[in-house]
Amino acid sequence: MIFDKKAFSRISYGVYIISSKWQDRINGMIATTVFQVTSEPSAVAVTINKQNLTHEFIEKSKFFSITVLAQETSFNFIGRFGFRTGREFDKFKDVSYKEGISGSPVVIDNAVGYIEAEVISQLDVGTHTIFIGKVMEAQVISAQEPLTYAYYHQIKGGKSPKNAPTYINESKEK
Amino acid sequence: MIFDKKAFSRISYGVYIISSKWQDRINGMIATTVFQVTSEPSAVAVTINKQNLTHEFIEKSKFFSITVLAQETSFNFIGRFGFRTGREFDKFKDVSYKEGISGSPVVIDNAVGYIEAEVISQLDVGTHTIFIGKVMEAQVISAQEPLTYAYYHQIKGGKSPKNAPTYINESKEK
Repeated sequence: MIFDKKAFSRISYGVYIISSKWQDRINGMIATTVFQVTSEPSAVAVTINKQNLTHEFIEKSKFFSITVLAQETSFNFIGRFGFRTGREFDKFKDVSYKEGISGSPVVIDNAVGYIEAEVISQLDVGTHTIFIGKVMEAQVISAQEPLTYAYYHQIKGGKSPKNAPTYINESKEK
Repeated sequence: MIFDKKAFSRISYGVYIISSKWQDRINGMIATTVFQVTSEPSAVAVTINKQNLTHEFIEKSKFFSITVLAQETSFNFIGRFGFRTGREFDKFKDVSYKEGISGSPVVIDNAVGYIEAEVISQLDVGTHTIFIGKVMEAQVISAQEPLTYAYYHQIKGGKSPKNAPTYINESKEK
């Protein structure tokens, strides 16, 4: 049986910030696994690691936002949302965002567009949950190219953090 | 409330052939909504319209394969799998494929790589079903660039068929 995990890296992804609010706390994180699931009504799926603070906020509030990042987004900006936990610092400090209609923060810095959604269904897939969100609001913010994970990885030399669905344990692979 | 469906087109996708077998019949279709959901164990999600023949085959057999298409894949090849139904003709005639370990056909023509999976969970999302498949086999076939939906759409001028999660009814949009 052939099991070459490199085949997984041939799947194409974008790079997004998923944000949510619970009570008076807001948080956001980088995700790559976003897709539209239905057209009528418009609904999207996001897959989030159960250990992430954003997972807790989405599960409790039932709302989230997706910011589609531009190709030009800096490594630092991605690192701020992708490789640190909101349990230890305020990721939104000095970041442009607006309060969405659901209360979820919507990151505006480096945004090509955003989608705000309400959770209508969710599926437990072990280490992660797939949240299905009915789209409440959607807007294009700029005509820049969206950042793809391939671009982030190949051109910028970026990696996936340990909690990502696409994480490859390179030490284990050898 | 702002509801601009163009924001959905900023989500990044690849272009894949999802195939399955039921009894002595095989079928395959183009999909864009594929992502990895967990790393341990390796599992992937695909979203399929309930009206598609491949949906019926996956639901009955509980197995499917994903072929990641190369950027160079011809329009004709995509059209064969994407815009016609296997109820009316044999999509695999004159196409290179192999029988996977689960029985699902695996398209080899124009493949960058493939993944074979067994359905371990599924979620009804209205017009579509999200199938979660535990990966049984995965292989890289070529070092070519994978085809992205953005490339197919912008460079090749391709569109989504009516049954796709990403379908936009342009006549309705006006």
